[in-house]
Amino acid sequence: MPSTEPRSYCPINLSLEIFGDSWTLLILRDMMFSGKRHFRELLASDEGISTNILADRLDRLERRGLVERRRYQEHPPRDEYHPTARCRALRPVMRALIRWGQRHVPGTAQHPPRGLAAPPRRG
Amino acid sequence: MPSTEPRSYCPINLSLEIFGDSWTLLILRDMMFSGKRHFRELLASDEGISTNILADRLDRLERRGLVERRRYQEHPPRDEYHPTARCRALRPVMRALIRWGQRHVPGTAQHPPRGLAAPPRRG
Repeated sequence: MPSTEPRSYCPINLSLEIFGDSWTLLILRDMMFSGKRHFRELLASDEGISTNILADRLDRLERRGLVERRRYQEHPPRDEYHPTARCRALRPVMRALIRWGQRHVPGTAQHPPRGLAAPPRRG
Repeated sequence: MPSTEPRSYCPINLSLEIFGDSWTLLILRDMMFSGKRHFRELLASDEGISTNILADRLDRLERRGLVERRRYQEHPPRDEYHPTARCRALRPVMRALIRWGQRHVPGTAQHPPRGLAAPPRRG
C-alpha cells in the first residue's frame, strides 16, 4: 500500500502506485475502458493528470504506434485520440493489473474502473 | 518501439520502455523468473540498474509487502530478498507483459527471459 493518500481508488491506479509510474497506463485505461477520445476528457480523470504530462504521453503513444491522432475539426484545430490494434492488445495487461489490485490492495474491489463491465466498442 | 537503443531485448523490458517506468517490475521479474535472491545478483542484470536505484526499489518493495528481507549472515551483514505471496500473485501481470512484448515489439520473441519456461520454486 502507498504510504500517502492514493490519487484514486481505481485498482489499476493503486497497483501502479505500488510498483511503477502510471500515467501512460492510466491514459490507456481511459481510452480502452471508458471510451475517452478527447484531450479534455482524458484531462478530467480522477487522478488529476496535468496538461503537459498528458500532452507528452499522448505524443509518445502516437510515436510508438499505440494511439492514432485524428483531426476532426480545423477551426479551431481539434483532435481525437484512438487506440490502435497494438494498444487494444494491452487489454490482458490491464485486466491482470485490475485483478491483482482488487485482490491485493485493500479498498479497491468496490471501485472498479468505469465501463469495465461493458467496455465501449468505439474507435 | 523506443527510438533509442533498448536497454535489453527482454520482452518485458521492451514493453515497459514503451509504456512505463520499469525498474521495479524488472527486479520482480528477476526474483520470480530467475530466482535471484541477492543484491549482487539483482545488480548484475542486463539492463544495468544502479546500486542506489536498486537499493531504493528494494526498500519500497519491502515496505509495500512485496519483498521480504532475510538476514542470512551477520558479519559482515548479508541479506536475501524473497518475493512474498502478494508478489508472486503478480505473475499474471508479468505473463501478460511478456505476451504483449513478444507479439507487438519486433525482436523480442527470440529473447525470452531466462527461466521463463521453468520458473524456479525458491523462496
